[in-house]
Amino acid sequence: MPYDTLVVATGATATLPDIPGTDLEGVFVLKNLRDGINIKEYIKNNQCRRAAVVGAGFIAMEMSEALRNLDLETSVVYRGELPVKKWDPEFSTMVLEELTKNGVSFVAHHSPVAVERHSDTHLSLVTDKRTIDADIIIFALGVRPNAQLAQEAGLEIGKSGAIRVDASQHTSREAIFAVGDCCESYNRVSRQWVSVPLGDIANKQGRVAGRNIAGYPMIFPGIVGSQSFKVFGLEVAMTGLDEKAAERSGYSPVSTIVWGSPVARSMVEGQRLGIKLIADRSSGKLLGAQAVGQSGAVSRINVLSACLWSGMGLDEIGYLDFAYSPPFSGAWDMIHTAAQVLEKKL
Amino acid sequence: MPYDTLVVATGATATLPDIPGTDLEGVFVLKNLRDGINIKEYIKNNQCRRAAVVGAGFIAMEMSEALRNLDLETSVVYRGELPVKKWDPEFSTMVLEELTKNGVSFVAHHSPVAVERHSDTHLSLVTDKRTIDADIIIFALGVRPNAQLAQEAGLEIGKSGAIRVDASQHTSREAIFAVGDCCESYNRVSRQWVSVPLGDIANKQGRVAGRNIAGYPMIFPGIVGSQSFKVFGLEVAMTGLDEKAAERSGYSPVSTIVWGSPVARSMVEGQRLGIKLIADRSSGKLLGAQAVGQSGAVSRINVLSACLWSGMGLDEIGYLDFAYSPPFSGAWDMIHTAAQVLEKKL
Repeated sequence: MPYDTLVVATGATATLPDIPGTDLEGVFVLKNLRDGINIKEYIKNNQCRRAAVVGAGFIAMEMSEALRNLDLETSVVYRGELPVKKWDPEFSTMVLEELTKNGVSFVAHHSPVAVERHSDTHLSLVTDKRTIDADIIIFALGVRPNAQLAQEAGLEIGKSGAIRVDASQHTSREAIFAVGDCCESYNRVSRQWVSVPLGDIANKQGRVAGRNIAGYPMIFPGIVGSQSFKVFGLEVAMTGLDEKAAERSGYSPVSTIVWGSPVARSMVEGQRLGIKLIADRSSGKLLGAQAVGQSGAVSRINVLSACLWSGMGLDEIGYLDFAYSPPFSGAWDMIHTAAQVLEKKL
Repeated sequence: MPYDTLVVATGATATLPDIPGTDLEGVFVLKNLRDGINIKEYIKNNQCRRAAVVGAGFIAMEMSEALRNLDLETSVVYRGELPVKKWDPEFSTMVLEELTKNGVSFVAHHSPVAVERHSDTHLSLVTDKRTIDADIIIFALGVRPNAQLAQEAGLEIGKSGAIRVDASQHTSREAIFAVGDCCESYNRVSRQWVSVPLGDIANKQGRVAGRNIAGYPMIFPGIVGSQSFKVFGLEVAMTGLDEKAAERSGYSPVSTIVWGSPVARSMVEGQRLGIKLIADRSSGKLLGAQAVGQSGAVSRINVLSACLWSGMGLDEIGYLDFAYSPPFSGAWDMIHTAAQVLEKKL
């Protein structure tokens, strides 16, 4: 097909490990709506009772909740020690407790080596340590950008493996744009082009490309690395860089974790919220934040994303003016407390 | 008492109208913990069944919920048309509906002219239109700064009626500081010194003064005018300036209201969130925001407070990077949508 302007929106592909048996019936990835529908139908048609989820990122967490809600015995099988490794161990421990509390079995330090089928509805996930029986197996090991077509067409590919674009979503070739999971995004904090396959970013890039193509120029101002998920009764969220990523970008990170209540202590008993802040020792500026709690974690991270976006320092974050009322926070919000605690470490 | 440093923290006094009978037993204001305890005891000891709340600000709203929770027939009596007049009529209409839905009678266009006592537990609130019987009457007409002592001591008083301070909480007199409801705060958006009697601001000013007195200099960076309250199932919040205040400060305000869902539409049915943004036509910068909804209103206003604090423009707010996940927002958050809608009006 001839074109005046071409938009590459080839997305990303869910990763499967290079082991035998991943092509068996009853083995799934979850990348798109069709995958979701197929998983549901397979569970129903085969009266599945036991599920194994391989991987422990946010898709694995969301899947384990969905499977438990369908009353399946669910195991999360992971090569590492704790789930959601992007978060601080203090927080991923809380995620692990939430899984356990809700009847999900977390099988740590197991790497899959094969999938085997033993009968019509009986599969086995063979790991390096033991064999786990399951009626359905879901691999949730992340995605990689689908950049093959672009590469073959001679478009520049970034170090991340995703298509290189500029701030207008233009690729290295005249009249070709790229948007979504297949292309890179500019991280305003690390000042690097990265591959972050998230739906909200894809939406924004699509709109930016559309405007540029239609003759209403605009740039995509970039991302700060915000993400969140819900697992059972827990909100889990982060933005910006962790200490390692901060060091790789040339910063001198210092960090702190504070625990408290998302609302005034007189209002709700027993709710715990943890906030971690990472800042740069030399400038005092915020570099990243993480939060976990039954409520109030995502809303704090969204505020901190806006702070990060505008390059705010801890001194200002410690005194930000929020819409205080006891049902929604203490007179000092946990953001204030965390910023003031970390400022003392600078 | 001799002193090296004096801190004036005389707070504010709840306003009573200049009408007969406000000194009768069974007539209250709500300013401090003691007032709250007295009201509860009076209701219990006198088996109160009917309450009248005069005024329709956030204290009146919170009181009406508390009184309904104690099973009292509750009327909110107000001289104006709609409650919480600081908010846009579209939003205060929603507050009115919430009151009505929860059995609070909103008596609009009535001004109190007297309180009368007819028996041991029977009071009447006489208004310019009719007489409302009640067992307990609460005046919630706001507060005024308690600056009399400071004035008598020769301290400068601001136009707002509160004690004038500088950014270190220093008053016009050597070695005298003032903090809390009795003194002014600097509004970063209007660039004016104002009287905003809120607990979180008082906390911050106290800490700033304490540090300066102890020899660890710091300035109070000011406020942007954030506040919120909960009334029954509704979150009501605002930050910054409304159109009138913006005009008074020399801005050319444009505004928009958008209605949508606080979370992805697939997640929860029927929840409505309204967001109003006010921006400056010449600079494209945010000037203020309001939000009302069953959930998600305060968290949006807190994000917008951070945007306002750092002087962000609508172009950036429309593309901020939030921790998106369907249980917490759409891929485009309502903040994005509102900013993009308003940007078209610039």
